Order: sequence, then structure tokens, then C-alpha cells
Amino acid sequence: MKDQAGTRPDVSAELGALRARIDSIDDTLLALISERAALAQQVGHAKQGERIYRPEREAQIVRRLRESNPGPLSGETVERLIREIMSACRAVEEVTRVAYLGPAGTFSEQAVHKQFGHEVDALAEADIDACFHAVETGRADFAVVPVENSTDGAVGRTLDLVVASPLSICGEVMLPIHQTLMRKHGDLDGIRRVYGHAQSLAQCQHWLSRHLPDAERVSVVSNSEGARRAAAEPVAATLGSEAAAALYGLSVVAARVEDEASNTTRFLVLGAHDAAPSGRDKTSLVMGAKNQPGAVVKLLQPLADAGVSMSKFESRPARSGTWEYLFFVVCEGHRKDARLAAALAEIDSRAAFLKILGSYPAASA
Amino acid sequence: MKDQAGTRPDVSAELGALRARIDSIDDTLLALISERAALAQQVGHAKQGERIYRPEREAQIVRRLRESNPGPLSGETVERLIREIMSACRAVEEVTRVAYLGPAGTFSEQAVHKQFGHEVDALAEADIDACFHAVETGRADFAVVPVENSTDGAVGRTLDLVVASPLSICGEVMLPIHQTLMRKHGDLDGIRRVYGHAQSLAQCQHWLSRHLPDAERVSVVSNSEGARRAAAEPVAATLGSEAAAALYGLSVVAARVEDEASNTTRFLVLGAHDAAPSGRDKTSLVMGAKNQPGAVVKLLQPLADAGVSMSKFESRPARSGTWEYLFFVVCEGHRKDARLAAALAEIDSRAAFLKILGSYPAASA
Repeated sequence: MKDQAGTRPDVSAELGALRARIDSIDDTLLALISERAALAQQVGHAKQGERIYRPEREAQIVRRLRESNPGPLSGETVERLIREIMSACRAVEEVTRVAYLGPAGTFSEQAVHKQFGHEVDALAEADIDACFHAVETGRADFAVVPVENSTDGAVGRTLDLVVASPLSICGEVMLPIHQTLMRKHGDLDGIRRVYGHAQSLAQCQHWLSRHLPDAERVSVVSNSEGARRAAAEPVAATLGSEAAAALYGLSVVAARVEDEASNTTRFLVLGAHDAAPSGRDKTSLVMGAKNQPGAVVKLLQPLADAGVSMSKFESRPARSGTWEYLFFVVCEGHRKDARLAAALAEIDSRAAFLKILGSYPAASA
Repeated sequence: MKDQAGTRPDVSAELGALRARIDSIDDTLLALISERAALAQQVGHAKQGERIYRPEREAQIVRRLRESNPGPLSGETVERLIREIMSACRAVEEVTRVAYLGPAGTFSEQAVHKQFGHEVDALAEADIDACFHAVETGRADFAVVPVENSTDGAVGRTLDLVVASPLSICGEVMLPIHQTLMRKHGDLDGIRRVYGHAQSLAQCQHWLSRHLPDAERVSVVSNSEGARRAAAEPVAATLGSEAAAALYGLSVVAARVEDEASNTTRFLVLGAHDAAPSGRDKTSLVMGAKNQPGAVVKLLQPLADAGVSMSKFESRPARSGTWEYLFFVVCEGHRKDARLAAALAEIDSRAAFLKILGSYPAASA
């Protein structure tokens, strides 16, 4: 005999017991999450007008839970769920407004929700400048902007803007990125041209050389523009997100064509202040130097002497001013850590120009 | 004296106590959610190959928690969090694949996540036909497609497809929809043309008549196409989502211009089977009738006699077959409820054509 759902009676009894336990867990979850939200309200009242979102506090909570995660959920899933719960609790007091590089549906929007959960006002901006501007004018509390990709390097406009802006870096988000090759009809045969944003083309160059050695690569302003052109040209294909295929009526020729499986984009979270120490932090700074032999070594020496490790180092021609190059450095530790603070003071005494862009919790891998 | 974060010591002590309690809650939440995921695995093993996603079971859990919600979180937030937790637990066993009307970032994608949470494979399809096809060919487990808007009515293509498809309706999703008016530069002055998808124009017709009585309204294939044109025509504006403004470099002239503040789109969830009874269900059916006086009344009489209320009634010219009109009916109750079952049997004996499209849990308002 089977019940309504077509299940045998012994299995039904087992399912019934399991579901009763799940129901009881759900009741407790609701009670605890509700109490958590009420406590978050009390925290908000105690802080009286101070900002509600504390990146260092949320980073500590996420790390503690990931480290004590017993399974079977992945650490990534545990992080996502607790960030959603924190997002909901925060929103009881105040809805955080986050500007990002639009449109909706892009990787940047994913980065917003990865960091802030879904109970935020996510504001799609037209370009990276507008994201900074939204926070500078108070229209948004935070901005989330791409700063570099693991394969093809820095997003120049973001680096230029952090130098000039009064905003501080208060967080970073790491997001895995996948590229899709698509065209109007057909497979790889007959593709004579591949469109894509310069960054997308760079992320897929080995794949393209191997599979489409004779196809011309054309860098366009955005992958959307590439898709628009590919839709009109039977011999062309474009790189982009799978979502673009649906939008422009293209078929997917090959998925995940990025050269590095670990292709990741790093985003910065910018706000009026940086973050307090969380126990595992990074500090970003930019230094100006003349184009003289040894100038860079002299500036970096204090970090080496203090035993501070650098995770990024990026040089960039200065747009203005008396120095010729700007050096962007990301080092481990918080600017309030004694060792780093001393090294930064020493660099300050040596550099023509030093700006500490902010200290913030290191993102989970 | 203030501490590092600029907070007074007495407040610091209070915050410390609140945060200690939050930490303890978070530890318990992690333990419970992990146990819940392990139980979901056991349910999956007990069911041995049966489908993991049970819309009626999830609907019951959501309703129970919304009804017992003590606050301060809203019922909507409680629903969202528990759906995310269920989504994560489900994904431990099997990742549900859901086809939807792309591109990513649209209202349809929001409807997918509202119903299934974020731990799903959301597949962006080019049109509504492709959504059905994805499930029919086994490329997706479910499809989420728009079926009607509270202001401007039915999505004809979806109605046509449910009649012909072997798929059943196993769920519905209600999503509030907001329309934005945008143009290249400036405010309402000088707008001589308003682009928009026919549905968007319909949803905003009173607003447009009041604020732009002399502007021509031009129906285009999509709001994206409207945005593309508005970007090129200084005297034109377009309707669409705020996200489109960023994508096409338009400025927002007015937000929330839909005539009804409660403007809502209803989506159907389609799968291989409909849902088992959840305690608060709807049943969708379609009937064929000749264009004869009294034919419709005769078909609907059994529902009235059984005291079954109808929440929707929609007539549509038949594309083929011997009947001339199709009548789409949504009534309260599950097709396995004795009263409704008897009424449906009676309709079946009277109708030239009757197809029960499925029974499914009624969505939260």
C-alpha cells in the first residue's frame, strides 16, 4: 500500500518523524532569529545614531561560524545564511543603501548581496564614478566597485578614484567569475570574430588561441555591446555572462571559457570610514614616488623591516602632481596594529605622498 | 573617555552584553541549521529518488512560521529567511534547476529566488516557450513564468502554452512590480514620446494621462528596446525598471509611476507534477466551449453549486480545435478535496474540453 504521495507506510513513518523534528527546529530558529533582531534593535538604540553596519563585527561572526561549522552545509553556505540573517536584523533598525556598478543582474550586484545580504537598497549606478559620488553626496551609505580580476589585473578607474576620493575602504568581496562564448546560431565552426570587453578577452586569451586561433578579437565598450553585435553578425561570437545570451537571443557555444578556473574579481566596499580591527585585516595604501633608482625599495623597506607581508603591489602612472608613479599596496594587518602603525609612520616620513586608503576585514577565500 | 570606536564606557558594557547574547544565539542557529540540513539528507535518502522539492511542504512551513512570528521581523522577512534555509538544506541533497524568462536581473529572476531561495541553478531563457521546453526536455526541474499582472491582465503566451504542455502548475509566486519613467536628460518638460512594453504602458496609463497628456505612447518589444531608443532621442522617455536607467545612461524622471501601488505580477511554477494538498490551495483549469448562449454558465454551475469560489476567470479565443473559446479558471481548494473533486467530475461530463492544469499552495499575499 502507498499513501497519497506514493510512499510505503514504513517510509512514511520515518519521514513523519524526521519532519516533526524539522518542524521543531524551525520553531526554535524563528524564536532565536526574532530574539536576535530584537537585540540588534537594542544595539542600535545604545549606539544612538552611530552607524549600524560594522564590517569588522560581521566579519568576526562569519569567521567564527565558518570555523565551527560541523557540516553538512558548506562554509560558503553558512556564510551566506548568517549574512542574510544579519542583513534582516540590521534592516529592522535601518536599511543600508549600497551603490554599485549597474545594471542589475551583473557581478557587481552579486558582490553587494554577498557582503550585505538581500535586505538592502541596492542602487544601480551608470559607472564607477557615480558609485563614488553616491556615497560622497550621502545618497548611499556604501559603494561596491570592482578593483581587480585575478587574471587580467587592476580596474584603473577605481584606483584613480580612491586616490582622489575622501571615502575609505571598509571591506573587500571576492567573487568567482565565469565567461561564456555565444553566437547567433551554431558552434565554433565559422566564427571569424570574437567581441568582448577588454577584460573578458584578456581572461579568455589562451582558450581563444587554442580553439579559435584565426578569429579576430575585437574589444568593445561592454559585453552587452558585444552581444548586440554578435546578434547581427552570423560570423561573430561574443564573450559575456550566460544571462546576456538570453537577452540578445544568442546560443551558448561554450561555457566557462575563462583561462583560470579560479578566475575571481575582487571588489572594494567604500564608506565614510574604514573598519575597526577584526583580528584578520588588510590595509590598502597608495604612495607617490619619483622615477628614481631605489625610490620604491626605500618606500617599501619599512614594511619588510617590520615583517609585514604585502599581498598586492601595483604601480600606475600618476595623473597629476609632482610624483611620477603611484604605488598601490595591500598589506596584511590593521593600520592600528602596533607593528604596521610604526611601519606606516616610517613610510610617511620618507614618501613624497602617502594616503592610507583604509583597513578592513580580509574576505573569506 | 571613549573606546576605540568612540563609544562611552557604560554604553560599551551594554553593547558587550548584547553582543555576547547575539554570539550565543548565532552558535545555536548554526547548530540547528546544520542539524536541519542533516535531517533533510535523511529525508532525501528515505525518499530514494523521489523529488526533493515539495511545494506543499515548504508552503506549510512558511505559513506556520509567518503565523507564529513574534516580530520584530516582518512576515515577509521571516518567509525569505526560512526559504533560504530550506534552499540551502535542499541543495545538500540536490541542486534544483529552475528555468525563467531571462535575462538575469529581471522580475522573473526575483520570482525564482522568492520561491526557491538562492541555492538553485537559475537558467535564463530567451522566451516563455524556452522555459517550458527546458522542463519538458529535462534540462530544468521547474520553470517560473509570468502569467498575469494585477493592472493589465493576462500574459497570453503563457496561457496558450499551459494548454498544450504536458507540464502541471505546482506553485504560484506574487511579486510587487514598480515602473520608472526615465530619459536621457531633464525632467517631464519636453517629453513628446514615451516608449515601453505594452504591459508597462498599460500599467501606467493614468499616470501618463495626468502628467504627460500630449506625449505619444509607443509600444516596443521590450523596455530594454525603449531604453535604447530613449537614449538616442532627447524628446523621448521610456518606462522600465530602475536598473535599465543605469544600463542605458538615462536619468530617472519619476519613480513608481504605476497606477496601482499594489501593482503585482503573478508567476506560475511549472513542473512534471502538481503539488499535494497543503491546506490552503488553488486549482487552475481550462475549459473549451462553443460560442453558444448559456454555455459558460452551464460549465461554471457545478463550481457554484459546490460552494467553490473562483479567484480568476479569463476567456481567450482558442487557437485550434472544435471549441471557439477557452476559459481559464482559478478556484480555491485542491483537486483532491472532495467538494472540488465532485464539481470537477461534473464539469468534465459537461465540457467539450477540460484540462486540470494543477493544484498548488496559495502564495502569501
